[in-house]
Amino acid sequence: MNLHVVPIDMHWLAAAERHQNQLTKPPGSLGRLETVANRCAAIFGSLTPQVDAARIVVFAADHGVAEEGVSAYPREVTAQMVLNFVNGGAGINALAQAGGIDLVIVDAGVATPLPDLPGLIRRHIADGTRNFTREPAMTATEANEALEAGFAEAEAAVADGYNLLGCGEMGIANTTSASAIAAALTGRPAAELTGRGTGADDACLARKLSAVERALALHGPHLATPLDVLQRLGGLEIAEMCGFFLGGATLRRPVVVDGFIATAAAALAVRMAAPAREYMFAAHRSAEPGHAALLDIIGDPPLLDLGMRLGEGTGAALAMKLIQSAVAAFTGMATFSSAGVSNKHP
Amino acid sequence: MNLHVVPIDMHWLAAAERHQNQLTKPPGSLGRLETVANRCAAIFGSLTPQVDAARIVVFAADHGVAEEGVSAYPREVTAQMVLNFVNGGAGINALAQAGGIDLVIVDAGVATPLPDLPGLIRRHIADGTRNFTREPAMTATEANEALEAGFAEAEAAVADGYNLLGCGEMGIANTTSASAIAAALTGRPAAELTGRGTGADDACLARKLSAVERALALHGPHLATPLDVLQRLGGLEIAEMCGFFLGGATLRRPVVVDGFIATAAAALAVRMAAPAREYMFAAHRSAEPGHAALLDIIGDPPLLDLGMRLGEGTGAALAMKLIQSAVAAFTGMATFSSAGVSNKHP
Repeated sequence: MNLHVVPIDMHWLAAAERHQNQLTKPPGSLGRLETVANRCAAIFGSLTPQVDAARIVVFAADHGVAEEGVSAYPREVTAQMVLNFVNGGAGINALAQAGGIDLVIVDAGVATPLPDLPGLIRRHIADGTRNFTREPAMTATEANEALEAGFAEAEAAVADGYNLLGCGEMGIANTTSASAIAAALTGRPAAELTGRGTGADDACLARKLSAVERALALHGPHLATPLDVLQRLGGLEIAEMCGFFLGGATLRRPVVVDGFIATAAAALAVRMAAPAREYMFAAHRSAEPGHAALLDIIGDPPLLDLGMRLGEGTGAALAMKLIQSAVAAFTGMATFSSAGVSNKHP
Repeated sequence: MNLHVVPIDMHWLAAAERHQNQLTKPPGSLGRLETVANRCAAIFGSLTPQVDAARIVVFAADHGVAEEGVSAYPREVTAQMVLNFVNGGAGINALAQAGGIDLVIVDAGVATPLPDLPGLIRRHIADGTRNFTREPAMTATEANEALEAGFAEAEAAVADGYNLLGCGEMGIANTTSASAIAAALTGRPAAELTGRGTGADDACLARKLSAVERALALHGPHLATPLDVLQRLGGLEIAEMCGFFLGGATLRRPVVVDGFIATAAAALAVRMAAPAREYMFAAHRSAEPGHAALLDIIGDPPLLDLGMRLGEGTGAALAMKLIQSAVAAFTGMATFSSAGVSNKHP
């Protein structure tokens, strides 16, 4: 993994702001669309950034902590949903197709054996993680291999010509992992960061909170670095997403961060390489209570707030259309002088 | 104007909710996308609603109240921006093109003479409104003609095969009109409802607030009906947008409401025909302070909150992509049984 994240260029950011103020609109009147486009210009070092070719990679993996009864759905749903992705029937398939977004499905560590399928990429590190209420979720080797795999998937996207990257995930019990990561990274109480995920009832939520608290008690003394947090409390899909974000930032591409679990991966990436945040666009505010704390680490306010909590990259798919629209306005609009429109009263 | 707005069918709404819960996602996990799609199903009376063909109509007109010095831009910008729309250089052009949305430009009452141009529709009622700080903005005949013209524009969109309608506006000084309408419809103080529009400085804002307050003092005793409010305080583009919303609802099509000024028109439409609100989707929360009060009349929380305040239908263009995505998920996703995915633990 050739990790090398440089800050975006502030001169291009300033040049983009100047260009915005020449376009035929009151200064600032496109709101967030302006700051999004300006950052894209700085990322690409160009006043004509290209974000027309978008790809979302969905990373799937299983979680040992599922055996603690922390999810409303049985563990085999991870593999079943991978088949649903490959067959085009999931939410992300519909949204990616509607948005003209390329979709790649990656087995990062699904426990149930999956057949060879066209459209399924194998970056399978292990048959799921271990139960982190009892032992570290991964070995250090597994964590590093998963980071490398995600980084390579970002490299592949760029090599395939994509200039706007996003990722999502599938993994029964992975909100439990994301809550534990959020608690470890922020120091805030697990109870504030643990929610109902796919729809846990009260008993399930209690088991989930207990699992997070036991994991923090067990691993707390050994969480000195973000890699420690990832290895002990993470998931293989979270590790690959983290590598994907680091890869996108290294290759200087805008990377769209989906919901709660993707943001846990993005927050780890920021803790590993701080300037990576400058390449990140937070897609949406998830309904999960722990999301806000993780978003603070990225520092980018989410573009959307639609009460979504599906994962899979569904929020990223919607946000990509906003980013493309922001850049379309930036690069496509006439200037006051070119259009012969009077500017403000002097 | 064959105005006849019927409420949407609650049986189809219930059927859509049942269908959502069979799709391969936790119930409710697509948040607002689910309620948007369900309402589209009820509007069309179908579990396979079609919203793929979207059109935005931009209505432009001048305002007599501009002579009170209420805008940061000179009055001739209205006509200049119409030329910019026709030439493809404005924000709405870029966003409509990026979104695959058809765009129609209508002269509802631009004061500056405009040449005949391909792509410019003439529904020109008058050379702008009168200064409503001194007299009614329109005659009753003009108001009715403008409503008819907007209604006809919605009929034309449906006749042309469009199944998702939206509108926007251009008119120097039209936030002053929208603030006056908001005050008349809600009874709230003008100071709470009057903002900086395209970027008024403090002196300009003071003139604007004074204009709104003098208009309310002059016309207040004569605002018994929504038509009175429209005629005395409105604009020709606001009247045509109001007719457009009534036309869309009469023809049972989803209509997307852009920002502050479009919402003033939509609120008038709701006061004229209450069930029209059931066909409306609020696109975004404008940065204008009076917008929230008008949104309350529509009763639909906006889909986006991006700090935008450009008008032209730019928020509607972004929201249309969300509505299309919502319907794509609703109609395109597999069900638990068809995909062989296990549902929740019993």
